[in-house]
Parts: sequence; C-alpha cells; structure tokens
Amino acid sequence: MIPFNKPYLTGKETEYIEDAVLTGKLSGNGKYTKLCQHYFEEKYNFGKCLLTTSCTDALEMAAILANIQPGDEVIMPSYTFVSTSNAFVLRGAKIVFADSRKDHPGIDEASIESLITEKTKVIVPVHYAGVACNMEKIMNLATKYNLLVIEDAAQAIDSYYTFSDGSKKVLGSIGHLSAFSFHETKNIISGEGGMLVVNDLKFSNRAEIIWEKGTNRSAFFKGEVDKYGWVDIGSSFLPSEIIAAFLWAQLENLEKIQTKRIGIWNNYYFGLEKWAKKNDVILPYRPDYSTNNAHMFYLVCKSIEQRTILIKKLKEHGISAVFHYLSLHESPFYHSKHDGRALPKSNHYSNCLVRLPLFYELKEEDIKKIIDIITTI
Amino acid sequence: MIPFNKPYLTGKETEYIEDAVLTGKLSGNGKYTKLCQHYFEEKYNFGKCLLTTSCTDALEMAAILANIQPGDEVIMPSYTFVSTSNAFVLRGAKIVFADSRKDHPGIDEASIESLITEKTKVIVPVHYAGVACNMEKIMNLATKYNLLVIEDAAQAIDSYYTFSDGSKKVLGSIGHLSAFSFHETKNIISGEGGMLVVNDLKFSNRAEIIWEKGTNRSAFFKGEVDKYGWVDIGSSFLPSEIIAAFLWAQLENLEKIQTKRIGIWNNYYFGLEKWAKKNDVILPYRPDYSTNNAHMFYLVCKSIEQRTILIKKLKEHGISAVFHYLSLHESPFYHSKHDGRALPKSNHYSNCLVRLPLFYELKEEDIKKIIDIITTI
Repeated sequence: MIPFNKPYLTGKETEYIEDAVLTGKLSGNGKYTKLCQHYFEEKYNFGKCLLTTSCTDALEMAAILANIQPGDEVIMPSYTFVSTSNAFVLRGAKIVFADSRKDHPGIDEASIESLITEKTKVIVPVHYAGVACNMEKIMNLATKYNLLVIEDAAQAIDSYYTFSDGSKKVLGSIGHLSAFSFHETKNIISGEGGMLVVNDLKFSNRAEIIWEKGTNRSAFFKGEVDKYGWVDIGSSFLPSEIIAAFLWAQLENLEKIQTKRIGIWNNYYFGLEKWAKKNDVILPYRPDYSTNNAHMFYLVCKSIEQRTILIKKLKEHGISAVFHYLSLHESPFYHSKHDGRALPKSNHYSNCLVRLPLFYELKEEDIKKIIDIITTI
Repeated sequence: MIPFNKPYLTGKETEYIEDAVLTGKLSGNGKYTKLCQHYFEEKYNFGKCLLTTSCTDALEMAAILANIQPGDEVIMPSYTFVSTSNAFVLRGAKIVFADSRKDHPGIDEASIESLITEKTKVIVPVHYAGVACNMEKIMNLATKYNLLVIEDAAQAIDSYYTFSDGSKKVLGSIGHLSAFSFHETKNIISGEGGMLVVNDLKFSNRAEIIWEKGTNRSAFFKGEVDKYGWVDIGSSFLPSEIIAAFLWAQLENLEKIQTKRIGIWNNYYFGLEKWAKKNDVILPYRPDYSTNNAHMFYLVCKSIEQRTILIKKLKEHGISAVFHYLSLHESPFYHSKHDGRALPKSNHYSNCLVRLPLFYELKEEDIKKIIDIITTI
C-alpha cells in the first residue's frame, strides 16, 4: 500500500511540544510562534508574519485587511481550493473567476485585465503546485488599476519568481499580502496551520489587531497603550503553541525536506517523460520565471477516461492517486452567481489532472513501482 | 512566584499526539477528533459536537447557522469576552447589550424582554465563571418570540442547570446551539481550542458543511453524495488532530481535574468568607439552579481603589491576580454604535472584579499564602 500522503516527522516535534508546555503558555503567540514568525521574516525577507490556524484563516484576515465590502469584486482562478473564494465571500465579495493557463493550472494572466471593473478591489494569484503565477504582469496590473494583490501561496513555500530584470523574489513576498498553508499535505506541516504575510506594512498594525480578536492587545504588551479593548472586527486567528512548536521542528529541517522532495519529483519526471509524450499526457510545466518547490507531482491526462483508468490501475496495486478541484464557477454554491463565461481550461484540469503520491518517506522502490505501473498502461 | 494560570498536563498528551501521527492523519476530523466529540455527545447528552480551533470559531459557526443578516439584532451581556460579540458583528449583526445581574456578572434575565424588537434573532447567555444563566426564563422568552438561543459556554464545562420542575441539564445542552472553549486558562485545555454543540438537529447537516469549508465533504465520506464540492459559505473551523489528541488526554481526566479544582475553590471560599464580609467584598454568588464547576474564583471589591490595592499587594508577593472585561458597550469599537443605555452593573464588575490564581497544580500552601495576604489588607 502506498498512500497519497504521509505526514513526515523530523523527530523533534513532541520534544518541542513538551518544551512549550514547560514555558507555562500553550495558547497562541508564545515562544514557538515567535520563533517561527521570525524564521520566515529573516529567511525569506517577508514583511510581518503572523501564524494562523489555517491558510483559510490567513486568507480571511487578508480579506478583512483589504476592507472588502459587499459587492466588491475579487479576481481569482476558478481552478483552486474553495477557501480561496470563501474567505472573500464571507465579507460579501463578488468573485470574478478567471480561467487557467493552457500550459499550467495557474491563473491565465493574459485574461485578467478584461475582467477588471470599477468594483475590482483584489487579484488573488494562486501559485498552484508551488509554480509561480506571472507576478510581474499581475503586479503591474495592480499598480495600473490601484488594486491589491493577495497571493494564495498555500502550496508555494520556498519557491521563487524571477523578474524580467533578473531580480528574484520568493513567492509570498511579492503581493501586498499573502497566505501560506501548513496542512498535513504540504511540504512543511503542522497538521492544520497557516500564516499571513503582510508585505505592505501599512496593514501591519491592523493585522495584529484582527489576529488578536479585534483587540489592541499586542500594542498593550508593547507598552504602546495602557489598557486594551475592543477596537475592530477580528477573530481568534492565532494557533496554539502546540501547533507552533510542531511547526518549528519542521522549519529546522526545511532544507533537508526540500532536497528530498525535489529528488522524488525529479525521479517521477524523468521516469515518466517518454511514456507521457507517447500517450499525450502532459507533465508539470514550469515557466522560466519560476523555480520548483516539489510540492506536487501531477499528470494532465488527455481525457477523463484516461485518468479514470490510470487511477483505477494504481488503486488495484494499492496506490492512492487523487484528483481535485471541481471548477468553482460551476459549483452548486456559485454557478448561479457566475457571469456565465466558459472557463474551459479550468474544467479541463478538473477532469484530467491527477496527483501522484509525494511525501518525504516515499521510497525509491515505491516511485519505481508507481512509474512501472503507469508506463505499462 | 504564583502565576495566575498554569496549563496542566495529565501525562498522556504527547503519547496521544505521537499516536495521532502514526494514524497517518494530522489534519482535522481524524481518530481523536471523533473520540472527543463522541465523549461529549455520550457523557453530556449533547446534540452533534464539532471540535473547532477556538470558542471564537464555534461562535462564528453559530452566527452563520443562525443566518445572521446585516441589521439583525443579537442580545448579549456587555460584560463578556470580545469574541462573543465579534462573531455576530462579522455577519453584520447589531449587538444589543444587556446589563449584568446585581448578584452575579451573568446577563440580567429580567432585562432581556424589553430589549427584544422585531429584528431580534438571537439571545446569547454567557455562563460567566461556569455559573448558569437563568436558562428557563431565557428559553421561555425564545419560544415566545421565536428566537434562537446560543449559549456561550466557554467557561461552563461540566456545570448544570436545574429547571423549576426539578429536571437537570448540563450547560451547553439547553440552547439551540452552544460554544465551549479549551483555551489554556479553562478547566479542560488544548492550548487553543473549542467546540460547537448543535442541540437543535435541524442545523446538523449545515453545521458539518460550514465546518468543512462550505463543502459537502462529510456527506461524501458517508456515501450520501458521489462527489463533493462548494455548496455554502464556511471556513476551516476544525482543529488539527494534534490538538484533538491533546484534548483527549485531558478528557480522560475530567473528573479528577474537576474534583481538584472544586477543592481549591472551596478552600478559597471558606478561607475568605469572614474577611470578605467585614470588608464589603463580595464572594462568588451561585443561584440555587446552578452547580459550581470551579472554573474561576473571583472577588468583587467595593471599589476600583480597593481592587488596585489588592492586586498590588498580591503582586508584591509574586502572586498574579487579574481583572477583565472592559464593558463592550463602552469599547472604542462599539460605544458609538451602542444605543446609549447605561449598564452600571457591567461597569461595576469591570472596575471591581478580580480573579485569583486557580489551576490544577496550585498547592494548599499557596492558597493559604494568598488568603493570608488578602486577609491582612
């Protein structure tokens, strides 16, 4: 049996959890929360980092910071996880779904400008599989139309974008705000977990307030106010120190984990290259401006029938391969609210994309077995 | 040094976390989430239980289930934690703040009926210090005016209400919905954590959907639908299995923890009784219809000056005693939205209530020391 995913433990997680207990503080914003946030701010030159209980919650914080009001429009790909859109719908936004690129499930940047109206407030590029969206194009549009860019970097840890002038920035550091996930299926995990990155520091103080349930508690502990109270909307976005301690053990091993995953990814790629070409199956495409963080290895089959056969064959051998997302513009919740535009590429990935097992402890012989099964179909 | 709070470990927390890892599933809704939810449903005869990342999140789920629309009115005490109100404000509600009882910080049930208008949708009784609000009166009002009752049972685990016919129900099982907290300062903890209880089962299916990010994933895993997708608003309300495993270790020791806390509480009460009477300080009052879950031991001083002296004196001896809440109707965020009614009892508790250290490992000699210091003021 080869599962689709298996959470990897570095070995220090429970030790750090026990240490967190010894600090006498298990609620949020303690020693390990600060260690993790500082790590990200230093390593990736992010703006202010705030751990959250999930990437969903980080996106919800971003939607509040963007001051989304009923009727405001938010542009995002239809081929994405439901939380990308729900976070904005909860604030009353109208979602304007864009199609995917032909060569990649990420948002088709060429389609965005025609979707911008006077009501547009935010563009949400989703870095699918950790592959960068065309951030230069998107940031230029944002400047031209005075929009905010909120990167959905759920899958994008440790992946970089190169601008046309040759400068390079890590994903999540380019938009005004960005959201990461540490869900158990991600490269770096804490079971459930996420992080908001505030790159435009004009949002920094309000981000802390929203994070602390709408109170100015952070300012109080910094000695900036003499008592704290209810000053804004907000929620309990911050995770327990138990979660942060677990995450810290993972971060200490980030480079080791990334090296291992990239090795697995390359094994898949080179093992399947010939077969894919012969069978009209598309392997992951990566534009020159993006690095590969080996978050995911996927295939785009030529048809839903081909994908069904592939998944079934793998399942017969005890191997779990999965597909996702149903296009959000055609979902039961949103299809009547969508403006009717066809988004064929999103639907194509919906029908034809399949993800292969990829986790730290996936053995070479398992990869070989998976490749052997696929290539004999 | 005696801290105000110290998280108690039963000794099995990290063992269960390691076991959770072995299940291969660290995201939400796994083995330990189910164990905890089942425990509550069985022990307390709750309706459907759903673990959440915080009590705040459970209240937010309740506000969504109540279908709060902009302008809907929600009645709650002003003397409560900010999340009680923020959860409803996030959905556009107008909060109608009620005053506290003269003899107890809980909502003055006699004041509620006059606050009900055609726009009232929900009453939120907050069981302060685990002491029951007058639930019979409140439920009768809800029936009369067709309102929902959402119990804020953050502090109310294992506390009971006795109806006038002699029947007894645990707090959190009486309202249509209720919300619990497992924050590190509570009797039973998971660092951060909470739970929604759905007693009116007509909300049950939608609660699962909202919990699962607005998808019908739960129905899919039960085989009720053949694929799942976006069907409603929602968020990532469910906690990691790491948190649920921690909580499970606590629940196994619930009775031991409760017995210990009640002993500490009684030591305070009997040790301070005479002094309080002589100094016009009020000890915690408990109506006959409520049990005591020993969540909190507080004093209501006769003045803010008396409280300041008491906190200062304790601090000089390394003992941390704290006060809370600033009346929400006078908060920077809400005072201009409040209708101007004076809520003097809420303000009185704001100024005069002080909480003493109360945690499982608080030693008898520490309690004696605290009592000695207070009674020599």
